[in-house]
Amino acid sequence: MSLNQKYPSALLEDAVDAIGSLPGIGHRSALRLALHLLRQPAENVHHLTRSIDRLRDEVHYCRTCRMISDEDQCSICRDRSRDRETICVVESVRDVLSIENTGQYHGLYHVLGGIISPISGVGPSDLTIKELIERISSRAQGSDMEIILALSGDVEGETTAFYIYRQIAPFGVRVSSLARGLGFGDDLEYADQLTLGRSIAARQPFTPGR
Amino acid sequence: MSLNQKYPSALLEDAVDAIGSLPGIGHRSALRLALHLLRQPAENVHHLTRSIDRLRDEVHYCRTCRMISDEDQCSICRDRSRDRETICVVESVRDVLSIENTGQYHGLYHVLGGIISPISGVGPSDLTIKELIERISSRAQGSDMEIILALSGDVEGETTAFYIYRQIAPFGVRVSSLARGLGFGDDLEYADQLTLGRSIAARQPFTPGR
Repeated sequence: MSLNQKYPSALLEDAVDAIGSLPGIGHRSALRLALHLLRQPAENVHHLTRSIDRLRDEVHYCRTCRMISDEDQCSICRDRSRDRETICVVESVRDVLSIENTGQYHGLYHVLGGIISPISGVGPSDLTIKELIERISSRAQGSDMEIILALSGDVEGETTAFYIYRQIAPFGVRVSSLARGLGFGDDLEYADQLTLGRSIAARQPFTPGR
Repeated sequence: MSLNQKYPSALLEDAVDAIGSLPGIGHRSALRLALHLLRQPAENVHHLTRSIDRLRDEVHYCRTCRMISDEDQCSICRDRSRDRETICVVESVRDVLSIENTGQYHGLYHVLGGIISPISGVGPSDLTIKELIERISSRAQGSDMEIILALSGDVEGETTAFYIYRQIAPFGVRVSSLARGLGFGDDLEYADQLTLGRSIAARQPFTPGR
């Protein structure tokens, strides 16, 4: 369907344009979704739009870790059973959800809200690095804190990790990063050269039965 | 991401559930869209939700052809330059948009609002067949009307076409259906047997230069 298609209804056109402006939803899918919504009971459609409005208008960001939350502090920061000596620094809310989903991590988080990227005009002051440093400085004294820099492996991720490392090193905290190598179940044949090369260089003692 | 993932925010969970209930949008995409909406200016999000609400609440269906419309009668039915002796019968609003987009048709439409399907419990009385017959009966007398049954080529489409044909034959109107055969540019190698077989049986005189 061409972009200059004429619609029989300005209401339809507005809705298709608005839906089609969402990432990953093309013009054709937007039309399909709009016509689908037209066939639904009005209360279902209102439930959808109300839940989106409420998400946008009422969501909070945790005052400690900047994770999204329904309250002033998020459920992870409020959970006293979690390891409060470990802070995992991630780029986005999405990364927190991904790591939580593994069930392998029981510490706290710090959401940067982006990554240092001179090309996109994002500098350290656009991120929550200052808040991270305040968080660490207020607790590092006399504790055995570990900061995990769980950022992406590209240039921007490594630049951001290095910038943060330099800022927090003075506090004497342990700083770690994610293990990198071949994915579990990955085929050597299809691995990229960089990953395969680094996996050989950083080889681990073989542990039978694992 | 698993379906039983716990979210840090009930607002996020509600929005993801609502967005994920749309056809073709899985749980993962719904989460991506919800987090995208969170990063947008509030007025953009409200524009999206308002345009969806307005589409659902304010749209009309043309009293003549049942096409969606912003007014009591649609722009196609109101367009006096169109051929009023030809009515193209289609299943859905979407089909009207597809045919309009070809620029090859200048008559009117009639939207059935579905197709006869005993399996899905859709009978003739659930469609706008009665309205179609009234439309034809009020105009067929002394005119040279043509009714194009532009329905899908499957069993349900053919059943519906045959049902309508029997209802409208008494009015003495011409009834036609869409040409079927290989698509333009289609490769013989990949055509299904039924289409290829019918394309041979219904072969056309060769016209050089077309």
